[in-house]
Amino acid sequence: MKSIVEIAKSAGIEEQHLELYGKYKAKLSDELWEQVKDRPDGKLILVTAMNPNPAGAGKTLTTIGLSQALNHLGKKTIAALREPSLGPCMGIKGGATGSGQAQILPADEINLHFTGDIHAITAAHNLLAAMIDNHIFHGNPRGLNPKKIVWKRAMDMNDRALRNIVVGLGEGNGMTREDGFMITTASEIMAILCLSENLADLRERLNHIIIGYDFNDQPVRAEEINAVDAMCVLLKEAIKPNLVQTIEGTPVIIHGGPFANIAHGCSSVIGTKMALKLADYVVTEAGFGADLGAEKFFDIKCRKAGLTPSAAVVVITVRSLKYNGGVKVPDLAVENLSALEKGFENVKRHLENLQKFGVPAVVAINHFATDTQAEIDSVIALCKAAGAEAALSKVWAEGGAGGVELAEKVTRAAEQPSSFRFLYEEDLSIKDKIETVVKEVYRGSGVVFSPLALKTMQKVEEMGMSHLPVCMAKTPYSFTDRADLLGAPVDFTIQVSEVRISAGAGFIVALTGSLVTMPGLPKKPAAESLYVDEDGQVIGLS
Amino acid sequence: MKSIVEIAKSAGIEEQHLELYGKYKAKLSDELWEQVKDRPDGKLILVTAMNPNPAGAGKTLTTIGLSQALNHLGKKTIAALREPSLGPCMGIKGGATGSGQAQILPADEINLHFTGDIHAITAAHNLLAAMIDNHIFHGNPRGLNPKKIVWKRAMDMNDRALRNIVVGLGEGNGMTREDGFMITTASEIMAILCLSENLADLRERLNHIIIGYDFNDQPVRAEEINAVDAMCVLLKEAIKPNLVQTIEGTPVIIHGGPFANIAHGCSSVIGTKMALKLADYVVTEAGFGADLGAEKFFDIKCRKAGLTPSAAVVVITVRSLKYNGGVKVPDLAVENLSALEKGFENVKRHLENLQKFGVPAVVAINHFATDTQAEIDSVIALCKAAGAEAALSKVWAEGGAGGVELAEKVTRAAEQPSSFRFLYEEDLSIKDKIETVVKEVYRGSGVVFSPLALKTMQKVEEMGMSHLPVCMAKTPYSFTDRADLLGAPVDFTIQVSEVRISAGAGFIVALTGSLVTMPGLPKKPAAESLYVDEDGQVIGLS
Repeated sequence: MKSIVEIAKSAGIEEQHLELYGKYKAKLSDELWEQVKDRPDGKLILVTAMNPNPAGAGKTLTTIGLSQALNHLGKKTIAALREPSLGPCMGIKGGATGSGQAQILPADEINLHFTGDIHAITAAHNLLAAMIDNHIFHGNPRGLNPKKIVWKRAMDMNDRALRNIVVGLGEGNGMTREDGFMITTASEIMAILCLSENLADLRERLNHIIIGYDFNDQPVRAEEINAVDAMCVLLKEAIKPNLVQTIEGTPVIIHGGPFANIAHGCSSVIGTKMALKLADYVVTEAGFGADLGAEKFFDIKCRKAGLTPSAAVVVITVRSLKYNGGVKVPDLAVENLSALEKGFENVKRHLENLQKFGVPAVVAINHFATDTQAEIDSVIALCKAAGAEAALSKVWAEGGAGGVELAEKVTRAAEQPSSFRFLYEEDLSIKDKIETVVKEVYRGSGVVFSPLALKTMQKVEEMGMSHLPVCMAKTPYSFTDRADLLGAPVDFTIQVSEVRISAGAGFIVALTGSLVTMPGLPKKPAAESLYVDEDGQVIGLS
Repeated sequence: MKSIVEIAKSAGIEEQHLELYGKYKAKLSDELWEQVKDRPDGKLILVTAMNPNPAGAGKTLTTIGLSQALNHLGKKTIAALREPSLGPCMGIKGGATGSGQAQILPADEINLHFTGDIHAITAAHNLLAAMIDNHIFHGNPRGLNPKKIVWKRAMDMNDRALRNIVVGLGEGNGMTREDGFMITTASEIMAILCLSENLADLRERLNHIIIGYDFNDQPVRAEEINAVDAMCVLLKEAIKPNLVQTIEGTPVIIHGGPFANIAHGCSSVIGTKMALKLADYVVTEAGFGADLGAEKFFDIKCRKAGLTPSAAVVVITVRSLKYNGGVKVPDLAVENLSALEKGFENVKRHLENLQKFGVPAVVAINHFATDTQAEIDSVIALCKAAGAEAALSKVWAEGGAGGVELAEKVTRAAEQPSSFRFLYEEDLSIKDKIETVVKEVYRGSGVVFSPLALKTMQKVEEMGMSHLPVCMAKTPYSFTDRADLLGAPVDFTIQVSEVRISAGAGFIVALTGSLVTMPGLPKKPAAESLYVDEDGQVIGLS
């Protein structure tokens, strides 16, 4: 690892603009933004993927490897990534910093407490929660209906026991009521931090958070209980983007990591904009597959922040194609060209969708040792037939050198003039926006709204908030709302069970089916295999 | 503020041993300890106080001012202090970093997230909690009795609604059971971190934590559910002491801050020992008044860590003496020599107690503008009559210069040969230890144990743990267990309602009356007055 001062220097950042967190992590100062904000933007590349599945895709890996490869081509490149959440590191997932020759360092620290941003969000979230119950305890002057509080509590841990709880039991402990914890990455504050332009914008968005409803069923906002200024105090460092490096010394800005279902699943606007001012190319990623991740990246993040993506990369694997073509996990290492061709329908639909946004797409075939040459040739041919460039990516084994072909094709795509457009315009109703996404992106025949969802959409209209974009909370495993329908299903409807208002973040969440915002731990949690060795190194995390 | 690199240099610490957190905060590396561990220790000065009361004492202020004053005398001095907890900063308390010319910097950051140590403790605490419920969820192989889980959850927030809760409601969310949150500073992990010598010792202590009891009523420890190694991973940075500075550039090591009732209320052993290797004088403080704070500092911290204090400072104020002599708060500014003399009985008893530990004591009269010369003269005369040196301390107004007389008297006391001894020996029974503290320190006539307390003490004996020291959880406002009995009460008994086993920290807690380990917010929380100004500065905190 190089010192972060040296990495910063390579990105044209002077040491005075760094707030060091040890030798290998730094926050970037507000003054740096003032210095660079009038520069022209670099090109923004979105890395997305086919629908995720147990066979694995390698989206973060490819994002890191591509950023390294672009530097091999002499393009000054920064990766703009999401921060891993600590909770899932203790569960199934392990770390989220890439692997092999395409990883971010220092991986352990990034996966654990990093620079404390998520802890700060947890604290701000729970301060608001404590102030809500305290408001009721001290006479409830605002008339909050304790049965209609929608602001829950948050913790960065996988803890199913906290999903549904009763708080305030016992004398002197406030109003007894139902409540629950979500994992911090599902907090609206995480989404807000990632969509804010600066601290003043953050404050304004926090003010708008709907914490619940009063006895007249009118929304009560965070600003009404005087919590927001103190929340800003807690968040004033968390809002500054973090600089780290890849294993090849490529600068990486890691900042924010909202859920990709209940929120938009992209790293921060502040981090992305900073990177665009500092580099020729910025490689970023969005959560899940392109049906959820890319659509939200374009329709929520790019729309809100005024960003124009120059190209998209769709990460696929031969194994994933075969899985989508019906092959079971134990058989994925066996050559199967017909299953591969069948599974490619999934990719084809994602490629068509990206065209609707006017964004040129390149397919990255993330190479696995079990891929046969015939399979690779077949995928490349299928991509060509679908009108897309494709490149084999060997960044796991070879780092940036293994992604040069991909990088070349990405630069070629990105150098075309952009015809980026949103899928829908703001002035459509919420219902129409949801139907547009379902019909145009998922290819469903229609949407079935529950009475509850219809009622909330009515409320959104009354509150004058129907101009907000929609944030779909759907299973990532399928284009449909059923996780087991792989490939490119047709003739299905999407059930919208519930609609939630993220008034601070600025989007309307449409829930399809049930949504778990607090994960649980598996029978043998990853935590059981973690330890600090005799040299003080963390083993078992990344 | 000087850069922390410069402050470190003044303490003989090379830059390579610093892990910087911005320009003004750093963690001290393990390698530094290896380098200095064989040096002779400096002299350890404990700052304690008369019983706290609404008139205020100024213990932290005096600790900081005295460390500055000792440097004025040419004694190389480091202050070793506790870290403020974020929760109370949002409640009544505001910051806890001194004030005026005797404060620690950067105050806002120290009062907020600092270097993330408390957040790491919260995460480690809640990981253990999540793994307990997860163990039961996945078949409960260890046979934990869900009705007898003693490990609760933790949050660094004042949130009364979380004191008593029910978790695990709803299908798929685990065992429904009673639970609760404590503030993180009350977590046994905080006490453990503060008593550990190093990461290996921390691990061993975490292993011993009793999380609950099985269906045969046998204790179940943290090590039995494989949580401890991952907890160490979360705590590996938190265990390193933090370096900051006073307003005069005196080095300050801030590390850990356990509750002073359910725990021992002292900063970390690691931080104190590091400071003793780096300085001629180390000034540290203990929670509450000397009846709780000093007794636990001596009998728990010094005993466990093999520390020998050279002198104690008892902080008093004229106002506090008058309050203890029966004057009400609105009248405290009025001269009242007879109330002052009456209230001095409280100080006299603390001074006698310190003699029992063989520690020479100096009284610091923390000066307020409303003190009259006659009052000050009277206090000095009363101290002299009680056989103690006294000095007027004006460190709030004048910084170290205002504490030179105090510092001179402290050095004179500390240069005497030490005759430090513990109040009781380890081989007494828990019951006898509690009775010794009550009779010798509080001056009660005896102890009344509840049947529950007697049963737990029996269990402690059966478990072979009666060699542990006792940690009294008593009101800090009185020598008795009734907060309203001021001065130096006689003819009272202490009621021990409950005994708890902190097997990891290594002490037995005796609870007198009810104990709240999760504070609430007041009607107008301090949080409502906090904000970030246009220059990015936090207003309203310190």
